[in-house]
Amino acid sequence: MALSIRFNVKSVFRYITKNNCPIRLFKAQQSTVTTSTHDERVFSGIQPTGVPHLGNYLGALESWVALQGKYSSVMYSIVDLHSITQPQDPQCLRENILDMVASLLACGIDPTRSILFQQSQVSQHAELSWILGCLTSMPRLRHLPQWKMKSKQKNEGSVGLYTYPVLQAADILLYKSTHVPVGEDQIQHLELAQDLARIFNNQYEEFFPEPCALLSSTRKVKSLRDPSSKMSKSDPQRLATVFLTDTPDDIVLKIRRAVTDFNSKVTYEPESRPGVSNLVAVHVAVSGQSVEEVVRLADGLDTGQYKNVVAEAVVQKLEPIRQEIQRLRADRGYLESLLAEGAEKARCLAAPVMMEVRKRVGFC
Amino acid sequence: MALSIRFNVKSVFRYITKNNCPIRLFKAQQSTVTTSTHDERVFSGIQPTGVPHLGNYLGALESWVALQGKYSSVMYSIVDLHSITQPQDPQCLRENILDMVASLLACGIDPTRSILFQQSQVSQHAELSWILGCLTSMPRLRHLPQWKMKSKQKNEGSVGLYTYPVLQAADILLYKSTHVPVGEDQIQHLELAQDLARIFNNQYEEFFPEPCALLSSTRKVKSLRDPSSKMSKSDPQRLATVFLTDTPDDIVLKIRRAVTDFNSKVTYEPESRPGVSNLVAVHVAVSGQSVEEVVRLADGLDTGQYKNVVAEAVVQKLEPIRQEIQRLRADRGYLESLLAEGAEKARCLAAPVMMEVRKRVGFC
Repeated sequence: MALSIRFNVKSVFRYITKNNCPIRLFKAQQSTVTTSTHDERVFSGIQPTGVPHLGNYLGALESWVALQGKYSSVMYSIVDLHSITQPQDPQCLRENILDMVASLLACGIDPTRSILFQQSQVSQHAELSWILGCLTSMPRLRHLPQWKMKSKQKNEGSVGLYTYPVLQAADILLYKSTHVPVGEDQIQHLELAQDLARIFNNQYEEFFPEPCALLSSTRKVKSLRDPSSKMSKSDPQRLATVFLTDTPDDIVLKIRRAVTDFNSKVTYEPESRPGVSNLVAVHVAVSGQSVEEVVRLADGLDTGQYKNVVAEAVVQKLEPIRQEIQRLRADRGYLESLLAEGAEKARCLAAPVMMEVRKRVGFC
Repeated sequence: MALSIRFNVKSVFRYITKNNCPIRLFKAQQSTVTTSTHDERVFSGIQPTGVPHLGNYLGALESWVALQGKYSSVMYSIVDLHSITQPQDPQCLRENILDMVASLLACGIDPTRSILFQQSQVSQHAELSWILGCLTSMPRLRHLPQWKMKSKQKNEGSVGLYTYPVLQAADILLYKSTHVPVGEDQIQHLELAQDLARIFNNQYEEFFPEPCALLSSTRKVKSLRDPSSKMSKSDPQRLATVFLTDTPDDIVLKIRRAVTDFNSKVTYEPESRPGVSNLVAVHVAVSGQSVEEVVRLADGLDTGQYKNVVAEAVVQKLEPIRQEIQRLRADRGYLESLLAEGAEKARCLAAPVMMEVRKRVGFC
């Protein structure tokens, strides 16, 4: 799931080693994923935080688009039930949902190849979440990242925030999903979904597949104002973040003001020169070239000149997306009907699964 | 809600004093409830624990039946989503649900005058519960009775058990219920529902009425083997509990073996003579007479003889119920169709409420 949580590399690798988990590294353009089989299903969710930024796009959304060509069944959910675990203004939330739909479509999510839907329109998510919550011990959730990060201080968050990962598990298992594109920061949450599949299967006979992680990308776009931290929607520095709706002028301005260092040479040394390396990484991602190719092309340019090259490449990538978002956003009726269709398709898949769950639990 | 939790009189009165809460004492036969107005709705839930016992019947179910004549809109839910907060065998759970339906009907719940339905068949309960959970702080639930009693030791229960009262609040608010028959042990849970109605109304404009408690009865039937504790389904002593499906012979045996004391006179002194006083209380409840009338009638009888009188009165009350449960239980198809009809009616009431909730929260 694409959620903005910090990532601890060590814990991921500890996890992989310990659980021998089938994590696949999935890159948008050079996929290592094998051809889809009949029973495979990809599921991921994204919170309706409004228009995504360049980091979201390169880190997750581009991979989401590519997965549509790799798997026969792909589902992407705008997880609004998750978003209310933090206070939301209802009017903004509604607009953010539509911004997110328009953005996903503009980035290349194709409603004829994937099911794009709004979580709250499919009642089975909350239903399965309740049942899975009855299989989850209270302490199991205490150390998961969403709660630890967002409850700020001990026990200060809401019940919704605490039980967030249980709803995430329900999102995944409801469609018997087999593959979940996740950021590394979400591995622990996926592990809960795997545990709950096992617990349910042990208690009520084999039913849910254990979903595998598809690590959607190792790309981490950094803030243009502080390359030690991730690019973030909520960055208070206006010039730190490139949004998909930024105009070419905005993009040029932000990249020209990007923090680099006193060395004017263009090199890729993320540890010692994070600023310029971030620009190289962005350039690599938007152009589809390798780091070596990009650095070779920059030979003879100083960082000031190189920023113009990067800005141009970013504009070239994002401008068609920006225009498409603008076009789609003007047609609210279309976006809403598309969400309604997506929800209908999702319900058709969820209904027989929930029916079987109800039967196994003893409700019918 | 009729749930088997111990009761602390002091905390109830502290609560009433502190909150000036509109609690009404409601007795089955001599009601103090005023005539129903158009907007009033009664809601209560009962866990599918199988066939109820005499304590459930006299303590709650008889009042539930009477409420059908007092309010124009009455809803009773078999709360199976709540029941899975404790481990359940699926086959037993299914049979327990049907036992409970048959028992409620046999006791006088009339599906033409009240909506009788199974909670898990109405998806909106879980949906609203998620939303209300996002308005509930984690510490708010820590000291509520269900968790404190059933988690046994600190933090040992499931997420479902911890969030049990939030689902209860959703059950009540989903139908904009105004009156909730509760045991005194459930007052704190109802208080959460009242708080959540207020919190929702403050955040999203006035919408939910604040539900009032109808304290369904002050009758507490005691164990026949240990009159210091309540009659309970799970009492390990077979003779302690009279079930609604007990045969006349079972009932006579259990009451004749009831623990009394060495004084053979029949008096009503609950503090000093709990055993015989429990029999008097049961006699009062099943015969509709007053304590004074019952004690006068027993004048000249020793406790041994009096037990026969009480047993006869209990048999007279329960035998038609037992026969009706038996008749209904033989017709599984009828019980299931009745639950389906009840769920359909409940859904019709729940759907517009949830639609409005979704709109106010910003989902649509």
